[in-house]
Amino acid sequence: MTATNHVPEQLLRISGPGTAPVCAPGTVGDELSPALAEELAGLLKALADPVRLRLYSRIAGARGEVCVCDIQDVGVSQPTVSHHLRKLREAGLIDCERRGTWVYYWALPGRIDLLDQLPRP
Amino acid sequence: MTATNHVPEQLLRISGPGTAPVCAPGTVGDELSPALAEELAGLLKALADPVRLRLYSRIAGARGEVCVCDIQDVGVSQPTVSHHLRKLREAGLIDCERRGTWVYYWALPGRIDLLDQLPRP
Repeated sequence: MTATNHVPEQLLRISGPGTAPVCAPGTVGDELSPALAEELAGLLKALADPVRLRLYSRIAGARGEVCVCDIQDVGVSQPTVSHHLRKLREAGLIDCERRGTWVYYWALPGRIDLLDQLPRP
Repeated sequence: MTATNHVPEQLLRISGPGTAPVCAPGTVGDELSPALAEELAGLLKALADPVRLRLYSRIAGARGEVCVCDIQDVGVSQPTVSHHLRKLREAGLIDCERRGTWVYYWALPGRIDLLDQLPRP
């Protein structure tokens, strides 16, 4: 053990199992940059609410656009639904358009694909 | 328009574009159940922090396990790193084992795969 205590950390990182008994049986792989981590954290915060997730899933799961009247039945008041839909819009996850009495929503593909940047085990 | 104003909502949902001028050009597709939405929201909350995301990405991106000494350099204090790692553990995203001086972390595959339940546009 003593012989490897002074091996520079970088050497420990790139050495394999068995050769670096001090602290490095694995290697650190792909990681998110600080900037991407900030962006992804914002996206996750926008989604990290059960009602927002249900609303988003109804919109993203639809083929094309959906009328707000078809998605707002999630057990909360209409103003609360509007609040959650606004948060999803501000996060760039959905967009909408008013036509007459109704507002139509659709999901935007680009932003949610940030999830794919997160390394999986 | 008047003729369709009294069509039951269910009929509007299953009718296609053009046949339901009142409010339903699209159809609501796959959606998260309330229970799954709660579970996924908890997972997203656990990840929705830039430092936690960076730590998780270092662990999940590694092949196998990593020593805490190789991942803790994320610009915050060591107690803060420990706090974030504990949150990731409590969320079932990672696990760890102490061996001598060091603690080794690895990512658990099951929990993060909940992300795949979220419909994408």
